[in-house]
Amino acid sequence: MHDFEQLSQQFTERFNRDHFPAAPASLYDPNRYFLQMGGKRVRPVLCLMGNELFDEINPDAWPVATAIELFHNFTLIHDDIMDAAPLRRGRQTVHEKYGSSTALLAGDVMLVAAYDYLNRISPKYVMAIMHLFNQTAREVCEGQQLDMDFEKSTDVGFDAYLNMISLKTSVLLAASLGMGAILGGAGERNQNLLYEFGRKLGLAFQVQDDYLDAFGDPEKFGKQVGGDIKSNKKTFLLIHALETATGADKRRLEELLQSDEEGKVEEVVRIFRACGVDAWANELKDRYVNEAFAHLEDIAVLSKRKEPLKQLALFLTQRQY
Amino acid sequence: MHDFEQLSQQFTERFNRDHFPAAPASLYDPNRYFLQMGGKRVRPVLCLMGNELFDEINPDAWPVATAIELFHNFTLIHDDIMDAAPLRRGRQTVHEKYGSSTALLAGDVMLVAAYDYLNRISPKYVMAIMHLFNQTAREVCEGQQLDMDFEKSTDVGFDAYLNMISLKTSVLLAASLGMGAILGGAGERNQNLLYEFGRKLGLAFQVQDDYLDAFGDPEKFGKQVGGDIKSNKKTFLLIHALETATGADKRRLEELLQSDEEGKVEEVVRIFRACGVDAWANELKDRYVNEAFAHLEDIAVLSKRKEPLKQLALFLTQRQY
Repeated sequence: MHDFEQLSQQFTERFNRDHFPAAPASLYDPNRYFLQMGGKRVRPVLCLMGNELFDEINPDAWPVATAIELFHNFTLIHDDIMDAAPLRRGRQTVHEKYGSSTALLAGDVMLVAAYDYLNRISPKYVMAIMHLFNQTAREVCEGQQLDMDFEKSTDVGFDAYLNMISLKTSVLLAASLGMGAILGGAGERNQNLLYEFGRKLGLAFQVQDDYLDAFGDPEKFGKQVGGDIKSNKKTFLLIHALETATGADKRRLEELLQSDEEGKVEEVVRIFRACGVDAWANELKDRYVNEAFAHLEDIAVLSKRKEPLKQLALFLTQRQY
Repeated sequence: MHDFEQLSQQFTERFNRDHFPAAPASLYDPNRYFLQMGGKRVRPVLCLMGNELFDEINPDAWPVATAIELFHNFTLIHDDIMDAAPLRRGRQTVHEKYGSSTALLAGDVMLVAAYDYLNRISPKYVMAIMHLFNQTAREVCEGQQLDMDFEKSTDVGFDAYLNMISLKTSVLLAASLGMGAILGGAGERNQNLLYEFGRKLGLAFQVQDDYLDAFGDPEKFGKQVGGDIKSNKKTFLLIHALETATGADKRRLEELLQSDEEGKVEEVVRIFRACGVDAWANELKDRYVNEAFAHLEDIAVLSKRKEPLKQLALFLTQRQY
């Protein structure tokens, strides 16, 4: 059994090889550039932890974890095009540096490379892994489309938002664990419980992410507070505030969403507090964390095997940065 | 044994079902719209013919043929974005009708759907089919990137162009036949021969396509002659003319490539003729057809089994439209 740090290090050592041929450099250099930006590699580590929950690491877990991380990076490259984002992790996005057409194509070939890693595992697992991988890939695309649809809508309810964010961010975390469970030899019931643990954990993580953007301590947070508010991004907080604010606060919030005025972040945060969004978000997060842990409890393995996942879950949902 | 028409009809009947869920319609309607435009379905039929060359149609050939056609459509949707093409088959392209972001995502999910069909076949074939499919997908992306690179270059040699066009268009035709051969139980030597038959056939087809654009009979051709010339597209003809024209013709050709003047098409065609590009293109096509047929001859099956492929090859490379 290994903790997050150990698995992250082991994965990164293996992942930091070249996944692409040298030529044509005009296609593959953009992918090398993007992967070299690094990242926390949370998803592949979840795959390895899902495996280790049930058994020693199956050699097939490495290519599957690699496929997951390549898939995740494919979605980032394409999302950045769609969002017209100039920067990611403080560096130029692929389409900014190499142009949209090349970024599109580099993303495509990154997805193909992910499938190529899936094709390196034992035939015994291919069908189950591919099934979950494909289902998840479809859902992530659906989540991104819904997210774009919602950007144009002023009237997104909590349930619709929850469904979107689950598809866009949680299912890949869940599926990473789920694929690990498959490779660890887990039965279907345990696979499903671990998947649901991951899905709820993902929701809790997103609530925390949204919370920190508005209420985080700028000293600890590391990035500017209020980025979501400035860009009018739909978040758990905004959705709830729009559903619960009344009277002058409601009118003012809707007004602020149309404006770029100075002091916007502070005023939106004030309205959030006035609606009790901060306490509500903490309760919502705790609920998801508790539901996630209940699923983890139900998994039929020795409880000490669950420790690394518990620690990671607490870290991800209680971080202040 | 069936001919192209019969297999095309059988495939189309099966293919004209819905490959996507109903919701979110904002993501899947664009794909339904694009697939309903139709098409000759050449690639899936090649897969079926490659299978029938060796044995009765394997039930797995249908999902593989479907995956190939979905993959091809994925490339068209993304290529249309990159080329900023307003129309395809006389109708609005996906990005024109639904926006670039949705077209990007609709293409992504079309590729995932293709892989989902590959995951429905017998585990016995999955690894070999996925291997060829992934290699081909990678090569098609490489071809598209090289094509974009060449657009910006004034100095593309014949060999570089040939490599690009082989990647961009021929390898998918070749791989369609190759996957059929795998499913028909062909040995590796026969698989490779059929693959090379397809690759050479694809090159001959492209030469004929380029030839018709410049020298086709407008009555038979069905579309406007000179489209490639107007858009300064690199073709077999232009590459050869740039390599062989001399003196005033060469200077004038380079001038015309920078201009939009009236009579451009006619004058470029005149220079093509002056350089003997028309006869050269016919010889080049015949060479590729002959090489393709030589590979087909070498395949160790009864020669009557080769008839449908021969007929298709002659049709594709001798059509006047």
